[in-house]
Amino acid sequence: MNTTIMAPFFNVAVLLYQDADLVDFAGPLEIYSTFPPAGQEISFKTTTFALQKSIKTSASALTIAPDVSFQVVEENLSNYDILVIPGSMPATIISMLKREDGQSILRLIQSFISLPPRDGAGHRVIQSVCTGAFFLAAAGILAKRTVTTHHMGYEICKHLADEAAGGDSGIVVAKKRWADAGLTETGVRIVTAGGVTSGLDASLYVVEMLLGEKTADWVASVVEFERRGQEDAWDSK
Amino acid sequence: MNTTIMAPFFNVAVLLYQDADLVDFAGPLEIYSTFPPAGQEISFKTTTFALQKSIKTSASALTIAPDVSFQVVEENLSNYDILVIPGSMPATIISMLKREDGQSILRLIQSFISLPPRDGAGHRVIQSVCTGAFFLAAAGILAKRTVTTHHMGYEICKHLADEAAGGDSGIVVAKKRWADAGLTETGVRIVTAGGVTSGLDASLYVVEMLLGEKTADWVASVVEFERRGQEDAWDSK
Repeated sequence: MNTTIMAPFFNVAVLLYQDADLVDFAGPLEIYSTFPPAGQEISFKTTTFALQKSIKTSASALTIAPDVSFQVVEENLSNYDILVIPGSMPATIISMLKREDGQSILRLIQSFISLPPRDGAGHRVIQSVCTGAFFLAAAGILAKRTVTTHHMGYEICKHLADEAAGGDSGIVVAKKRWADAGLTETGVRIVTAGGVTSGLDASLYVVEMLLGEKTADWVASVVEFERRGQEDAWDSK
Repeated sequence: MNTTIMAPFFNVAVLLYQDADLVDFAGPLEIYSTFPPAGQEISFKTTTFALQKSIKTSASALTIAPDVSFQVVEENLSNYDILVIPGSMPATIISMLKREDGQSILRLIQSFISLPPRDGAGHRVIQSVCTGAFFLAAAGILAKRTVTTHHMGYEICKHLADEAAGGDSGIVVAKKRWADAGLTETGVRIVTAGGVTSGLDASLYVVEMLLGEKTADWVASVVEFERRGQEDAWDSK
């Protein structure tokens, strides 16, 4: 008798926006779309989405069209298991937060962290990379949590969390490669990565959490990347 | 008296093609477009180009439109100081090499490595990432050189170089993070990177070669990436 054990399958939605940092979102996309070891089924389907029909990134030398519109992800939010929020230059995000596009992103984050895990997946994760944590802070979901962000953005991140809380939010912005900031009330895990390439490490951490160490090590080997630990923060010379 | 010393300025052309690996080209683009330290001028202008008007990458969840056409770069090739050739799945490149699109890329590589350095730049570099070395091998420019590529592609790389040489090419495909394969007759430096994220290291090596260690360390700090050495090859567990 053949018994096929279905591996869990995760839908990954990656937010894009004008001037988002290229590797902030390309790193997670690369990790989640790396082919699995022989004999193992594909476990992730990645989808990019944006409020704009096309965007330029931090590296201006290309124009990117997302797979689907912001509205498609918004209307089908419970289908997505992993939501990736990349960063940008701090001034870019601060400006967005004062506009309707930034507010739309905050509402999406607030809706996502109130969802229970999808049947068949068992986990739901929101993952910021770099200054993408600013969106999570401004959405008010980082209060009383230990998080990280790009090393040039620690103070801004705390300020945004406090502003959202209307006082001291109790956030701790720590120097880490990434910070698992724990679960929301409905069981959504909040993972915040440090700057740019730290998103590779945080994504490999999510892969390990969902599919085990062996699969995460396989993916790391394909991209020839030595995994760096949560506490192994980048340090200036 | 104020004396302004103009920093050298480098034009970087990054090849895109259907199914190119996302981080193979996003890594170098990120490194070359990172903002410089305070008070230092921007030293790189990045341009992407492709034979297609838009492409999907290895991570299929986005569509990318390059800055300019292949023809624009071809006709202005001597204006570009750094040419980046990303990789893809081996079968993708093998198929391309049998078609006109692959042959166009080989001709471009052959033209580029015959150019002297541009006045004002002083250096010219061709840089492959991952299996992008297959194009360099098939173009016949890696004979008698020590190079590297993705660890799953060492044999194919040697085979392609030998095929281009019509016999033993004398190529050595070594297990390295990246390999500086030396200069061509006209002084173009050939740099080959290992798999995927190794392109970040090789790009930082090029930044150091052109602008010094301090600038390269600054860029590495902005992207929170600990630089890995030429001999510090990725190793499977």
